[in-house]
Amino acid sequence: MEVMQVLHMNKGDDENSYAKNSKVQSKIISLGKRSNEEAIMQMLCTNIPDIIGIADLGCSSGPNSLSLISEIIDIICAKCRDLGRPTPELKVFLNDLPCNDFNSIFGSLPAFYDELRREKGSEFGPCFVSATPGSFYGRLFPSRSLHCVHSSSSLHWLSQVPPGLESSARTTTIMNKGKIYISKSSSRGVLEAYSLQFQTDFSTFLKSRSKEIAAGGCMLLSLMGRRSTDPTTDDSCYHWELLAQALMSMVSEGLVEEEKVDSFNAPYYGPCVEEIKIEIEKEGSFIVNRLEGFEIEWDGGVDDADTTFGAQLRGQRVAKTIRAVVESMLEFHFGKDIMDELFKRYGEMVEVYLSRTGTKYTNLVVSVVRKG
Amino acid sequence: MEVMQVLHMNKGDDENSYAKNSKVQSKIISLGKRSNEEAIMQMLCTNIPDIIGIADLGCSSGPNSLSLISEIIDIICAKCRDLGRPTPELKVFLNDLPCNDFNSIFGSLPAFYDELRREKGSEFGPCFVSATPGSFYGRLFPSRSLHCVHSSSSLHWLSQVPPGLESSARTTTIMNKGKIYISKSSSRGVLEAYSLQFQTDFSTFLKSRSKEIAAGGCMLLSLMGRRSTDPTTDDSCYHWELLAQALMSMVSEGLVEEEKVDSFNAPYYGPCVEEIKIEIEKEGSFIVNRLEGFEIEWDGGVDDADTTFGAQLRGQRVAKTIRAVVESMLEFHFGKDIMDELFKRYGEMVEVYLSRTGTKYTNLVVSVVRKG
Repeated sequence: MEVMQVLHMNKGDDENSYAKNSKVQSKIISLGKRSNEEAIMQMLCTNIPDIIGIADLGCSSGPNSLSLISEIIDIICAKCRDLGRPTPELKVFLNDLPCNDFNSIFGSLPAFYDELRREKGSEFGPCFVSATPGSFYGRLFPSRSLHCVHSSSSLHWLSQVPPGLESSARTTTIMNKGKIYISKSSSRGVLEAYSLQFQTDFSTFLKSRSKEIAAGGCMLLSLMGRRSTDPTTDDSCYHWELLAQALMSMVSEGLVEEEKVDSFNAPYYGPCVEEIKIEIEKEGSFIVNRLEGFEIEWDGGVDDADTTFGAQLRGQRVAKTIRAVVESMLEFHFGKDIMDELFKRYGEMVEVYLSRTGTKYTNLVVSVVRKG
Repeated sequence: MEVMQVLHMNKGDDENSYAKNSKVQSKIISLGKRSNEEAIMQMLCTNIPDIIGIADLGCSSGPNSLSLISEIIDIICAKCRDLGRPTPELKVFLNDLPCNDFNSIFGSLPAFYDELRREKGSEFGPCFVSATPGSFYGRLFPSRSLHCVHSSSSLHWLSQVPPGLESSARTTTIMNKGKIYISKSSSRGVLEAYSLQFQTDFSTFLKSRSKEIAAGGCMLLSLMGRRSTDPTTDDSCYHWELLAQALMSMVSEGLVEEEKVDSFNAPYYGPCVEEIKIEIEKEGSFIVNRLEGFEIEWDGGVDDADTTFGAQLRGQRVAKTIRAVVESMLEFHFGKDIMDELFKRYGEMVEVYLSRTGTKYTNLVVSVVRKG
């Protein structure tokens, strides 16, 4: 499976779309607001360039894509107002893989510009939004052209399934039988393959960004991870564990081939803070200002009284959130036909699981500054 | 009709798509090759910046979008090879209205990058392609960020239907009865409204680009126009004249309401070289290096033996080319249902017309340099 050609959030705006099921990611963005503000303010204290380059890596589509940009613009405007100087020109780059639905973001750009003009008035320096499709595990932008790089809910996606675990790998023994991600029963080989792929990818990411970000520029990353150094803890694995169980329950009824489950492994890794710290130190261009984890509920902490979700059970809500993110990959491997049944079962399993335990995701927040 | 929300080349790749019916535009690009080469070479003689900013305004979708960029990159590479220096970093911006099909361009980007790497090898400085949706009758890019701006087959589109000719205009008399563009029977008021809208738009275009293009940078424009100062000559009007006749033939059979034809006027203008020259001189930031017209056949001069088109008559080919460009607007105004019949009749009329005369389009080529 070529991640670059397959992975995208569910398009459009129907009930299974990412646009309608991205509350968790929206919550993560809003929880990072304070630390973004702090980092951007600090950057603007030392120097305000004539043109500020801003990039959002893994922007996806739907309401989150432009709301994050609005937030960053608000912070810059507020700081410039404080300093009594006009806002600089802003060049904004939205990045995601080429199969992302950029057309739908572009459709909401005219309204976004209208709102900017209405809110900020004529004093506001022009803002130019572009899209730059491509993998962030490689160069995307000209040298020293960016001052503020953001990425939320994206860096836990690897550039590829770790070598040796791919369905095309000619191994004599099946490496991760009945599982689709790291599990308590996974062998050391599986754990090491995943960890190594993360190190390779994150190091490539840092090297690319170190060329693109100007001295003093900030980078704000937020991704799924874990609290413990042990990669098999529930906070980083259990949503995959249950998905594997849902698939295996379909295997037991002859609805899915067992070989299909054995040969699928998610191109995903939830690191711990130590793994991130080591790569940043090894690369050497960035100073860490903040590196911490916080908990977030599997449904983003939606109030049960929230009428948007009607009488939907929590399990179903979580299943929809996960489906909007992983369906493109699962559909590619398992086929379209089993998706409804798979996520129905998954939702039921999540419902039972969450009624027994209070497991939450761990989201890591990383704020760094490019050395001078 | 809001041009910004309506005008786009036909999407996808079916038989009526722009991707399959853009031979005329492709021919126009290839005819401009020599003058592009000359202008870019001249620009690189004086100064090669570390990062070259390139923009294609009105990139549309389909094979033409990236082929033009390839051509510009080839010219830059050849010049750098001659000078024995590595190529600079290239930042490329593809621009069109937000309703353009950017997703389809992005789908072909990975193959485009692969080909670049294969052709140019590792010596080649990185090239970063972005899309910047928006109207080129306004700012799109940061100040002094571009070195080579190109636009082909786009600037003949106005930002709006000239005021007074819009369907919403409360005029007591119908301004352009039975016509959809300037016609020999059009009143002076119609001619002036069109000419004035072109002046306003082209002057806004020049003002915006003068801020965005660095000193010494070049701008290469190619658009439909006319040889004569008389705006009613066949080379600039007759393809619209026949489309109006096709519509009126449907009116006479009760298939289209006459009022619908009376209230439609194309947001299009084919200027003469004098009109372009006057606006460039008035704006004052650019030196004209080349300003000339050349003829191009209505079907782009496709060889009748070209098997791509099978036994298709010339009239049908022309109708498909025009349909791929204007259908979004006509459909918005007249409804989807009449499109097949309209372009069938149009094709037949074009066939008869071309068998009697050898009318060709006039395409204008403008090459200017930003003053220092």
